[in-house]
Amino acid sequence: MAERFSEISAADFFYRNRDLAGFNNPTRALYAALRELVENSLDACELYKIPPKIYVRLSSEGGSDEADGGAIYRLRVADNGSGVPPEYVPSAFGQILFGSKYRLRQVRGTFGLGGKMAILYGQITTHGSARIISSVGDGSIHEFEIRIDIQRNKPEVLKRKIHENRDKWRGTIIDFSLEGDYTKAMSKILEYLRQTGMVNPYAEITLVDPRGRLYLFESATNKMPEPPSETEPHPYGCDVETIQRMISSTQCTTMLSFMMEHFHRVGKKTAESFLEHVGIEEDKSPKRLNSNDLVRIVQMMKPENFKGFLPPDPSCLSPLGEELLETGIRKELHPEFVVVEQRNPSAYSGYPFIVEVGIAYGGEIPAGSSLALYRFANKIPLLYDEASDVSRKVMNTEINWGYYKISQDLPIAVIIHICSTKVPYKTVGKEFIADRPEIEREIKNGINSVARQLSHHLSKKISIEHEKERISIFSKYLPKIAKFSTDLAGEKKVPNVEPLLRSLGRYESSEE
Amino acid sequence: MAERFSEISAADFFYRNRDLAGFNNPTRALYAALRELVENSLDACELYKIPPKIYVRLSSEGGSDEADGGAIYRLRVADNGSGVPPEYVPSAFGQILFGSKYRLRQVRGTFGLGGKMAILYGQITTHGSARIISSVGDGSIHEFEIRIDIQRNKPEVLKRKIHENRDKWRGTIIDFSLEGDYTKAMSKILEYLRQTGMVNPYAEITLVDPRGRLYLFESATNKMPEPPSETEPHPYGCDVETIQRMISSTQCTTMLSFMMEHFHRVGKKTAESFLEHVGIEEDKSPKRLNSNDLVRIVQMMKPENFKGFLPPDPSCLSPLGEELLETGIRKELHPEFVVVEQRNPSAYSGYPFIVEVGIAYGGEIPAGSSLALYRFANKIPLLYDEASDVSRKVMNTEINWGYYKISQDLPIAVIIHICSTKVPYKTVGKEFIADRPEIEREIKNGINSVARQLSHHLSKKISIEHEKERISIFSKYLPKIAKFSTDLAGEKKVPNVEPLLRSLGRYESSEE
Repeated sequence: MAERFSEISAADFFYRNRDLAGFNNPTRALYAALRELVENSLDACELYKIPPKIYVRLSSEGGSDEADGGAIYRLRVADNGSGVPPEYVPSAFGQILFGSKYRLRQVRGTFGLGGKMAILYGQITTHGSARIISSVGDGSIHEFEIRIDIQRNKPEVLKRKIHENRDKWRGTIIDFSLEGDYTKAMSKILEYLRQTGMVNPYAEITLVDPRGRLYLFESATNKMPEPPSETEPHPYGCDVETIQRMISSTQCTTMLSFMMEHFHRVGKKTAESFLEHVGIEEDKSPKRLNSNDLVRIVQMMKPENFKGFLPPDPSCLSPLGEELLETGIRKELHPEFVVVEQRNPSAYSGYPFIVEVGIAYGGEIPAGSSLALYRFANKIPLLYDEASDVSRKVMNTEINWGYYKISQDLPIAVIIHICSTKVPYKTVGKEFIADRPEIEREIKNGINSVARQLSHHLSKKISIEHEKERISIFSKYLPKIAKFSTDLAGEKKVPNVEPLLRSLGRYESSEE
Repeated sequence: MAERFSEISAADFFYRNRDLAGFNNPTRALYAALRELVENSLDACELYKIPPKIYVRLSSEGGSDEADGGAIYRLRVADNGSGVPPEYVPSAFGQILFGSKYRLRQVRGTFGLGGKMAILYGQITTHGSARIISSVGDGSIHEFEIRIDIQRNKPEVLKRKIHENRDKWRGTIIDFSLEGDYTKAMSKILEYLRQTGMVNPYAEITLVDPRGRLYLFESATNKMPEPPSETEPHPYGCDVETIQRMISSTQCTTMLSFMMEHFHRVGKKTAESFLEHVGIEEDKSPKRLNSNDLVRIVQMMKPENFKGFLPPDPSCLSPLGEELLETGIRKELHPEFVVVEQRNPSAYSGYPFIVEVGIAYGGEIPAGSSLALYRFANKIPLLYDEASDVSRKVMNTEINWGYYKISQDLPIAVIIHICSTKVPYKTVGKEFIADRPEIEREIKNGINSVARQLSHHLSKKISIEHEKERISIFSKYLPKIAKFSTDLAGEKKVPNVEPLLRSLGRYESSEE
C-alpha cells in the first residue's frame, strides 16, 4: 500500500500544467509566446523611458502550414530595451521563477514566468534550444544558446560567445523554434499587435510573418509616460506573511518607526493613531511582537476596522495620460471625433488603480450591431472573454445610452484602460477583469462622462446637418420661386436672392 | 540602470498568485480550502477501495460572521483513507510541488498543489500552524504541527508526537485556521457537498458548520468503482520532453523494444510499422538517437501522421458505472424516473476519456425555466461558469428537445460526468470544460440516447394519464346515463355498468 512520494520542480509543474499560462494548443501557444516576449520587451524599454522599437519575425521551419495540428516556426523578437546583464541571462531565460525583483510596481508580466514558458514550450515541441543575444550597452554583446533542464529547473548553457559592441547597441534578441498554427492564430496575433500599438502609441512594432508579409505598426509620438516607481505596500493589502517578512528584514527598533518606514503613506500621526487603536506600545520592538499581536495588527489593517489610513497614491502606477491615449486611438482607429478622460486615482483592497476612458466616433470605425469595446490593462490588450469582463457588463447594463441619444448601430468605439499594481483578472489567462465595485464605479462614471461629451458633439453635428439641408433646400428652390414669381408678375428682372440665403445660414461661419 | 534579479520559491510564487488556485477572497478561499481537502481525502480512500467516511468541521474562531470581509474559522477534515507515512508528512503538507507520484492515472488533485494551498492560505491569514494526524494503520499514530517556510518552500516541524494506535486506526486528520466568510460561502459549500455525495454515492460525508448545524450526506451503497491503474503514455500524447525522459531512464537497447515497453498498447507489429514509417532501424539503440530522429519521431506520433496506433484503453480511468451513477442520482434528487448510460471509451489528443450521462425526471426535481444541468469531472462537481461549459453548449444548441417532446419547463435534470487522465478544463480554476470535438460528440450522443428513453417514458406516462382521465369520465357519467336511461324507459332495474367500464380500462392492469 505504499504511495511513492517525490517532489517536482517549478519548471516540471508548469510543463505539466502549461494550460495555466495559455499554452494549451499550437494556435493558442503561438499567440501566447509572441505576446509574452513582446510584453517583456515593452517592459524592458519603458522602465528606462526608451521609446520601444520591437521587431518580430515568425518564419516557417517545416511541416505544412495547412496540416491539421501544427507546424514548426522560428520566432525571433528583438528589442532596444535595457538588455540583461550576462551573469543573469541563463537564469533569466532558463529558470522558472527567476526574474527582476519588483516590490510593488505596475508591470505587465507575471514574476519569473511568462517569457520562459514560451521558451519551455518551444523546447518540448521541437527539442530545440533558445538563442539569446543581449547587451546593456557597454563594450560587449553576449550570445548564449540555452536549454531548460525541466526536471531540475536549471538553465543549461550549450554555447557562449562574446562579440565586440562597436555601436554600443543595447537590447535583447530572443530566437527559438516552436510548434504553432499561424493559419489559425494569425488574426488574433495581428489584432494583438494592432491593439498593442493603440495603447503604446510611442512604440514601433514590426512583424514579418511566415508568408513573408511585413506589418508595420508605426510610432505616432516620442512622448512616453513616466515609469512607475516602487512603493511600500499599503496596509490594506497586507497579510501575515508580508508583515512577518518586513519584521525579519527591518532595522527599525520601535513599532512607530516600523509603521512609518515600511508602509505606504503612513506618517507619524497615522502610525500613532493606528498603534493606539490596536493597543500596541509605540516603542515596542517589532521583533518582540508575539503571534496574537501580529494577527491583531493584520485584522486591524482592514478598511472596515481602521479608517485612518490615507488612500494609496498612484506613483507606483504608469497610466498613459489623456494625450497619449488620444494619440493611440487616432493612430489606429482614425476617428472623426475622440474624447478621452483620465479618472482620479482610486483603490480596491489596498491596491491603487487608475481608469482611463475614451470614446471615438466615425472616421474608419465601422458601425455594428453594438458599440465596439477595446479593453486594456497595464497597457496590455485583452482579446478574449469580453462577455465576462466588467467593462462589457457596465456598457450593457449600467449606461443609459438612450439618454445620450447614442444608438447601438452608430460607428462608435469605447476604450477602457485600467492600470493597477494588481489587476484583478478573473482567471490566470489574464483575459478579463472581475467586477470589483470600486473599479466598476470608475468605469461607469468615466463612460458617462465621455458619452456626454460625444452626445453633445453628435447633437451639434445633427443640427449642422439639418441646417445644411435646410439651406440646401432653400438654395435650390428660392431662385426658382423668385423666377416663377417674376414671370407670374410679368416682371422681367428676377430679384437677387443671395442676401436672403445668407441671412438663413446660421451655422455657415461656424463650419469654416 | 541595474535591475535586481532573484529567484522565488514555488511556494512564494503561489503565495503571490494564489488566485491561480482559487484563493482570491475569503469567500472563495473557504470554499476552495474545504474542497481541496475533501478531494484529497476521497482520493486517499478510493485508491485502496476504502468506502470513504469524511468528517468536516468548520467552527468560528473570532471576528464577527456578519462583518464585511472575513472572520477566522477553524477547519478540520478527517478521513479513513490510506494515511501518510510519517517520513513524508512534513513535505506532503508543507512543501508545494511535493506529492504522490502518479504516472498517468485519473486523479482529482493537481500534483502537489491543492491541499497545500489551503494550508498556506490559512497560514498567511492567521499566522497559525497546521496540525496533521495520520496513521497508515500500523502501531503508531503520528501527530505533527507544521508551518510552511514560504520563501524557501520547506516545511517547518514545530512539534511532533507519537501515539499508540490501539484500534489500528488508519486515516488522516488535518486541522488549521483560516480567514473565510461562511455567510457568503455557505450555499456553495453545501451544494458542493451535496453534489459530491451524488457522484460518490459510496461516500459518507458529515459537515458540522459554524452555526452548529450538522449536515449528513449518507452513503447509499457499499459498492465502489475499480481504482484506476497506471498506464504508459499513449504516443498521441507525447512531446519531446516526455520521450527524452523515457530515453534517459530506459534499459531497452533497441528501438523496437523501447516502443513496445514505454508506450501504451504498442505491440510488436505496431512498433515495427511505426519505425518503418519514421525511417529508424528497429535495432538502433534509443540512446543513440540524434536530435532530428527525436523530432521526427514526435512529429510522426500525431494522429494525422500515423494512424496505426491502437486507441487508448480506459484501464487508467475509473468511471462510476451505470449502477453507481443511478444510485447517486436517486440518493440526492429522488426522481420519479432515471435513465443512465455509460458511453464507450474514447480519446482526445492521446488522452482516454469516458462520458457518463444521466437524465432524471419528476419526484423532488423542481421545474424551472430551463433544464437543470449537473456537471462532474473525475468525480468532482463543477459549480461555476456553467454558461461557458461544453455540456451547456451541447444542451442549448445541439439537442433537438422538441423532437423528444421535452419542453424546458419540465422538472428534468441532466447529469454529465467526464472521466479522463487529463480533463480539458478551460482554466485553472477547474470549473468548466473546453469544447474538444471528441468530448462534445460523446456528450451529445449520450444526451440524445437518454433523452430518447425519457421521451418514451413521458409519452407512455401521458397515455396513461389520458386513459385514467377517460376512464374517470366514463366512471362518472356511465352510471348516470344508465340510471337516466332506465328511468326514461320506465324500467326499474339499472343495468350493471361495471363490465363495460372494465372493458374500457386498457391500462388498468399495467398500473398495478
